[in-house]
Amino acid sequence: MYQAALKTRGVLDGPRESCGIFGVFGQNVAAKLTYFGLYALQHRGQESAGIVTSTGKSIHEYKGMGLVSEVFDEQILNELPGNMAIGHVRYSTTGSSIVKNAQPFVVSHGNMTLAIGHNGNLTNAKQLRGELEERGSIFQTTMDSEIIVHLLARNLKAGIEEALRRAVSQIEGAYSCTLMTEDKLIAFRDPNGFRPLCLGMLNGGYVIASETCALDLVDAQYLRDIEPGEILIIDKNGLKSMKPFPKQRRSYCIFEFIYFARPDSNIYGQNVYVVRKRLGARLAKEYPIKADFAMPFPDSGNYAAIGFCQGLGIPLEMGVIRNHYVGRTFIEPTQSMRDFGVKVKLNPVRDILNQKRVVIVEDSIIRGTTSKMRIKALREAGAKEVHMVVSCPPHRYPCYYGIDFSTKGELIACQHSVEEVQSYIGLDSLCYLSFSGMLESTGFEQDTFCLACFNGKYPVKPSKGISKLCLEY
Amino acid sequence: MYQAALKTRGVLDGPRESCGIFGVFGQNVAAKLTYFGLYALQHRGQESAGIVTSTGKSIHEYKGMGLVSEVFDEQILNELPGNMAIGHVRYSTTGSSIVKNAQPFVVSHGNMTLAIGHNGNLTNAKQLRGELEERGSIFQTTMDSEIIVHLLARNLKAGIEEALRRAVSQIEGAYSCTLMTEDKLIAFRDPNGFRPLCLGMLNGGYVIASETCALDLVDAQYLRDIEPGEILIIDKNGLKSMKPFPKQRRSYCIFEFIYFARPDSNIYGQNVYVVRKRLGARLAKEYPIKADFAMPFPDSGNYAAIGFCQGLGIPLEMGVIRNHYVGRTFIEPTQSMRDFGVKVKLNPVRDILNQKRVVIVEDSIIRGTTSKMRIKALREAGAKEVHMVVSCPPHRYPCYYGIDFSTKGELIACQHSVEEVQSYIGLDSLCYLSFSGMLESTGFEQDTFCLACFNGKYPVKPSKGISKLCLEY
Amino acid sequence: MYQAALKTRGVLDGPRESCGIFGVFGQNVAAKLTYFGLYALQHRGQESAGIVTSTGKSIHEYKGMGLVSEVFDEQILNELPGNMAIGHVRYSTTGSSIVKNAQPFVVSHGNMTLAIGHNGNLTNAKQLRGELEERGSIFQTTMDSEIIVHLLARNLKAGIEEALRRAVSQIEGAYSCTLMTEDKLIAFRDPNGFRPLCLGMLNGGYVIASETCALDLVDAQYLRDIEPGEILIIDKNGLKSMKPFPKQRRSYCIFEFIYFARPDSNIYGQNVYVVRKRLGARLAKEYPIKADFAMPFPDSGNYAAIGFCQGLGIPLEMGVIRNHYVGRTFIEPTQSMRDFGVKVKLNPVRDILNQKRVVIVEDSIIRGTTSKMRIKALREAGAKEVHMVVSCPPHRYPCYYGIDFSTKGELIACQHSVEEVQSYIGLDSLCYLSFSGMLESTGFEQDTFCLACFNGKYPVKPSKGISKLCLEY
Amino acid sequence: MYQAALKTRGVLDGPRESCGIFGVFGQNVAAKLTYFGLYALQHRGQESAGIVTSTGKSIHEYKGMGLVSEVFDEQILNELPGNMAIGHVRYSTTGSSIVKNAQPFVVSHGNMTLAIGHNGNLTNAKQLRGELEERGSIFQTTMDSEIIVHLLARNLKAGIEEALRRAVSQIEGAYSCTLMTEDKLIAFRDPNGFRPLCLGMLNGGYVIASETCALDLVDAQYLRDIEPGEILIIDKNGLKSMKPFPKQRRSYCIFEFIYFARPDSNIYGQNVYVVRKRLGARLAKEYPIKADFAMPFPDSGNYAAIGFCQGLGIPLEMGVIRNHYVGRTFIEPTQSMRDFGVKVKLNPVRDILNQKRVVIVEDSIIRGTTSKMRIKALREAGAKEVHMVVSCPPHRYPCYYGIDFSTKGELIACQHSVEEVQSYIGLDSLCYLSFSGMLESTGFEQDTFCLACFNGKYPVKPSKGISKLCLEY
Repeated sequence: MYQAALKTRGVLDGPRESCGIFGVFGQNVAAKLTYFGLYALQHRGQESAGIVTSTGKSIHEYKGMGLVSEVFDEQILNELPGNMAIGHVRYSTTGSSIVKNAQPFVVSHGNMTLAIGHNGNLTNAKQLRGELEERGSIFQTTMDSEIIVHLLARNLKAGIEEALRRAVSQIEGAYSCTLMTEDKLIAFRDPNGFRPLCLGMLNGGYVIASETCALDLVDAQYLRDIEPGEILIIDKNGLKSMKPFPKQRRSYCIFEFIYFARPDSNIYGQNVYVVRKRLGARLAKEYPIKADFAMPFPDSGNYAAIGFCQGLGIPLEMGVIRNHYVGRTFIEPTQSMRDFGVKVKLNPVRDILNQKRVVIVEDSIIRGTTSKMRIKALREAGAKEVHMVVSCPPHRYPCYYGIDFSTKGELIACQHSVEEVQSYIGLDSLCYLSFSGMLESTGFEQDTFCLACFNGKYPVKPSKGISKLCLEY
Repeated sequence: MYQAALKTRGVLDGPRESCGIFGVFGQNVAAKLTYFGLYALQHRGQESAGIVTSTGKSIHEYKGMGLVSEVFDEQILNELPGNMAIGHVRYSTTGSSIVKNAQPFVVSHGNMTLAIGHNGNLTNAKQLRGELEERGSIFQTTMDSEIIVHLLARNLKAGIEEALRRAVSQIEGAYSCTLMTEDKLIAFRDPNGFRPLCLGMLNGGYVIASETCALDLVDAQYLRDIEPGEILIIDKNGLKSMKPFPKQRRSYCIFEFIYFARPDSNIYGQNVYVVRKRLGARLAKEYPIKADFAMPFPDSGNYAAIGFCQGLGIPLEMGVIRNHYVGRTFIEPTQSMRDFGVKVKLNPVRDILNQKRVVIVEDSIIRGTTSKMRIKALREAGAKEVHMVVSCPPHRYPCYYGIDFSTKGELIACQHSVEEVQSYIGLDSLCYLSFSGMLESTGFEQDTFCLACFNGKYPVKPSKGISKLCLEY
Repeated sequence: MYQAALKTRGVLDGPRESCGIFGVFGQNVAAKLTYFGLYALQHRGQESAGIVTSTGKSIHEYKGMGLVSEVFDEQILNELPGNMAIGHVRYSTTGSSIVKNAQPFVVSHGNMTLAIGHNGNLTNAKQLRGELEERGSIFQTTMDSEIIVHLLARNLKAGIEEALRRAVSQIEGAYSCTLMTEDKLIAFRDPNGFRPLCLGMLNGGYVIASETCALDLVDAQYLRDIEPGEILIIDKNGLKSMKPFPKQRRSYCIFEFIYFARPDSNIYGQNVYVVRKRLGARLAKEYPIKADFAMPFPDSGNYAAIGFCQGLGIPLEMGVIRNHYVGRTFIEPTQSMRDFGVKVKLNPVRDILNQKRVVIVEDSIIRGTTSKMRIKALREAGAKEVHMVVSCPPHRYPCYYGIDFSTKGELIACQHSVEEVQSYIGLDSLCYLSFSGMLESTGFEQDTFCLACFNGKYPVKPSKGISKLCLEY
Repeated sequence: MYQAALKTRGVLDGPRESCGIFGVFGQNVAAKLTYFGLYALQHRGQESAGIVTSTGKSIHEYKGMGLVSEVFDEQILNELPGNMAIGHVRYSTTGSSIVKNAQPFVVSHGNMTLAIGHNGNLTNAKQLRGELEERGSIFQTTMDSEIIVHLLARNLKAGIEEALRRAVSQIEGAYSCTLMTEDKLIAFRDPNGFRPLCLGMLNGGYVIASETCALDLVDAQYLRDIEPGEILIIDKNGLKSMKPFPKQRRSYCIFEFIYFARPDSNIYGQNVYVVRKRLGARLAKEYPIKADFAMPFPDSGNYAAIGFCQGLGIPLEMGVIRNHYVGRTFIEPTQSMRDFGVKVKLNPVRDILNQKRVVIVEDSIIRGTTSKMRIKALREAGAKEVHMVVSCPPHRYPCYYGIDFSTKGELIACQHSVEEVQSYIGLDSLCYLSFSGMLESTGFEQDTFCLACFNGKYPVKPSKGISKLCLEY
């Protein structure tokens, strides 16, 4: 058996992925717990998975392309000894789908080994990389996390804590990270707090995770979130918290609530399912459409749809049935198979849809192409009217903080009015949730969130270089 | 690269699997259409998949263990030429999970090649096999379909139609089959009509499928069901129907409606989703429980739950969240991970369940062990009361016609009263749908169905041999 | 993980393979010993490998495509319990390279399971198969061994010994076989004794093998050959020998000595290496060529070359160097790479060949194409004269007894004179060993051997059907 | 499909591997030619293989664990475009058998991409690595070639030629390297010339290879060796040679002649086969043993054995037969299988050995354990006397220049007298070739070679760090 990693160089591929991170300290079976932690976070990244463990003296590492359950097996986990571990799942829509870019990223430097897992996106990555290369650094990957490690390496003599303090003073943007040395597990989060990160307790030790659903699966008890701007060091002496940053306003990613996080997770202290239901209920208030029933595209739209139906008092139906066996390989359909792209995943139920006025409750519209195909299939199955309500305002601006709805084409709402979008998708009506409706549904103040994808107000300015790169897409 | 098939002999392993079958005639891309047909029928069998095609002169075959999307790729499909094909997906809980038992089963005999795909279970298999062996036949597999082929082989000189007529006169039990020769596609169904089988039209040719959801995906138009006791021969001369059996009462499997078929399929002329909603609504009438909300275990229970909630006027919630990335390999959890078996698939949402009176709408209870674990997890997530309503009566008798809820242990309702089941599972109350409630929800007359798993009245007597075997389990 | 077997039907593919068989009785680790026995017999078949074991009560089976070391691993062997086993390696140049045709062939019939491994080729296979199909038998494979099993099955009521006696009375041609039931290991060999088969003793139990090199590796002690026409039954009562055939002349395959068997084996009571040296020495006597040195194409020609050099008193050199890492996959060379097909395996050594008169000692010439390319490469590396001596007479007739030098094209010596062959290959001279020279080198009488491939005198007449089939190639 | 790389950190694993390197410039099918070049050099490294190509603008890379034929297939080669390429095969006995350490090593730095392939071992690696880490460099691997790249990176602004000049002024030890940028292929060799490296011409372009056998397979014409201390730059302007080093004495590795290189290669201007024959002939002069025949352990000892037999006038025999199907996986033998470790590869031929006085012609004795087992097996096969002659003097000192006969245990001749070695191995007599005999057989002056493994005189002093590390083994 062999492995091989194919790579084309000569282009800088943009690292705008979303990720899930996990870490444990003081656990008998650190690798296995991390496996299950990543299992619960799989929705945050399906491209690669990695686990790095430490015995206190030596660091052990395994990474691969694919789902957590494909990359690891019982034997591999048994060969990852130690009672500390960090893990990472990664998703990328860019060309660099190679194992070199899998995380956690591990380097040996002098006598110390460092492993880092990163969720987010540095906004000054290109500039920092250029400066480091100027000074002789060589980069192995296109990952932001390698930049952080280089910054650490240049300050390690001052000790890991001081080195980390200096490193984070230079990086900008979104980063929720776990860092492991032979004897320390460190979690740190940018001062804006773009991405979630939480702390749990298990068997007298500690657990770090992107979302609480990972704590649930390993039966850890939620303690608190890692705070924005906090560096939390866990070692045999217990917890030590540092906050080296001047206080800054919060900029939680609101899209974690709307779409990205798992509904059974609590993030920023709120349950995602409950928030989604409130978004749906608010939609019902703002747009009391007359319809025979409302339906989600399962499963992401389920929870707002439940809230919408309860709010409006109309029935909920599953107008399309999800195929549970959609594989990851792709066979081209035959010419005669219309609507294949939709039906292979979601088959409309004619007996439910026929002659009915239907409202789709959708979490977001990015490009609109998928929605267009789905609405067409619903009409072919007999739906008399098809309306859509969306549980957030129109997406008009790209994200520079770790979610990639900008790389693969235009945001439809950026270039078209709501009426044009409605017409393009083929809807009888289209209603987006209002700004205030969205914010009030979360229960937070407006300035708690990064809303840049809706209003273009970026809490941390993206560097020129990256900004240009994005506009070129 | 190599292949290997592991097998243990010396025991007769019971072939009580469920399966999905598909066939096309007169199509340019027969193999690919069959691929997608099986794709849509994947819920009927996940263990193995196979496609056999015919060019009119030669027969080509590919089978393997695993999901349709794992067994086939574009290249393999391209190497299966011809404009006729049959395909099969198979599920088995017995020990014989080997590729030898994958279907369609193909044999060459004299100058003719026969391929057969079978859904169901012959009740006189053991006796027929014994008789055939007496006369010198050798069996390669433990599949019922091999018996049918041996019976055909002994009569082939009389022509395939006559041979088939003679063969079916000897077999008893449940069989919905596709049979292919170099130039004919034949579908036949037992006179009781235990398992569904339907006929569609596509591009001027024909399609056979276990369920209509497979017609939908390939954009075929539903024509009619293959009738119980019908032999339908499709060749260049068109359709030819034979009904060699004396008229018998219908014995449709009602469990296809309740659990097994896809909700977007129409079987026996009724939409499955709609029937399940009616079952749920009837439950609401029979058991108007006071509760804060009702919930399914997704996705199988979704549709009865929708009907129940609409009938009772209480909210529907998704109290547990399904993990979409549950792999097919299995890593043992750590000791500290309680309720792992449940949570790895379905994570309870504390914020939804806490302090609530919950009704679970369940489609059936077979052994009760899974239910017990799930209810425990709901209570740990804070549910104050947990009730369960089941959309059919208690399962008290094994099935001999192709569904295997008898092979792996006791049917809990066979040996215990409803009160005992409720106590075992840990429910505050447990209500099964009444017999009449179930039947009226289907919209059919009582004597349309096989209800043997509920009332022990077997439409076709299982042979002594098989009967004993089952009771020994 | 999944398996898949591709097959095209509609053609009768000729089963003229060569094979190696092995069996053990009364051994603690039967599967593992069989693994190593097959390992030593790998040269007799590289296409597929299989092992079947028996615990005395149940039969266990594993087969796959590829080399023994590819098909099996420690875990698979551990899952094949029992103290009896038979194994098989198979080579086929026909299109039927599929796992279905891997051996041993196993069937359950009534209460008995039979496993058979076959080396050789039945000459009345087509006729027997036709008769059996007439009587209702269905064949799964194109292997002769399945015919033997069908004949057994039709007589099993008379007991396995009597059934075997009746079966062998009907089959004609070459067969050295192992047969295993739950509690018996049986070896039998056709009355002519075409293919070798020997008996050894190990740990108080018994071992059956195609060649003694397999006994060597498992440290078994050679006892004797299974005699032509002998049926040897090994069970808990020890050995029982039957000779149901009327005495017939021996027809040992002489090509086993010349090319096919391993040089460290003893077959028909003689060491292969020693016989090959004598063939080479006799060549030296018949053709005392003037040359600077002689060389083999390693490794098959090594031993005759040693004899030739010792006989003639000229140096032996390795004029071409064998690449030990020739893979089983094939990358097309570039246009500029001349002589690739030769050099990828055997690179000529210019410093040895340059300006030299060279004699190649070759074991046989079948089609002549490979020789032609090799001689060209030697000349390009500077050889002044290139002569060839061949350690047997010209191959003029196809073999119907298990070696396939007839299926893929013409035997060059069948259609061309020695002078024409010499000219085609590009030799300065070409000398074949004489008939008498070959026979006297073996130390046996002439009528001990099948010499059909040299003189067309077939000891067992091939049936018309097969004969035609061969000539059509 | 996924990939995974397992690694244990915290120990510095010694990179004392042997390797093969290859490069082409100005070829239509650079990747494919490199594939075949590596194929011919497979004996220099079987652990991993890699090819890096350049289109002139972009660099493409593929590496994997395993043999060249396992790592690459036609499709992978087709996805490596460009008319320049370098390739590498690697062998390591250390723990770091991971794909990360596969070569060529590729980095992007600023706007330039560098790929390097290295054969040899730097003696000041540890010190250089420490200094570079002091200055902030981070290392991804434990390979010496990464050190060279870091040194290059810190000087790239001065241009690649000047950067290379500065880099090689800092490194010490053995290095034969290929270096590729987007538009240049560079070969360089340390001033001592420890490892071979040659230049060929093909289709008007150029080829670089460790040995001439690689030129042979791709039909390139040998031009000359890369000279010790030479930097040869190949680009669209043709060849440019630099010799930045002060003249130093040659230190060719003599063990390449004795054992390591392929016999069909010419290295340092001499044919390896011819040198080995002369070593054997000289042995015959120094030790005219009375024996029935001499034999090698095939294939490495074949050529000295031929020289020995011709010199002494005794027959050459192949007393042991090599199994050509020895797999790379390993099944534990059973208890009853004696001499398994020997026989699985080399089976003694009793009919040749029995009652004979045998001389083994061996190329070297490192630890003696394998020899001991083999001699035991020969005696059990009946050999009356077993003598051994070795075609070089005793190995008494470790190698620090790229061959690892020191890492896995003691050199037996380092700690024991010849008599003790003879007794340990179980020989009737043991004779090593004399120093002068070895040197005169090569046809070179004594001070052309590195003879450190025989006499401890190291041409380049190993740094303290490495020296200690070796002695600790």
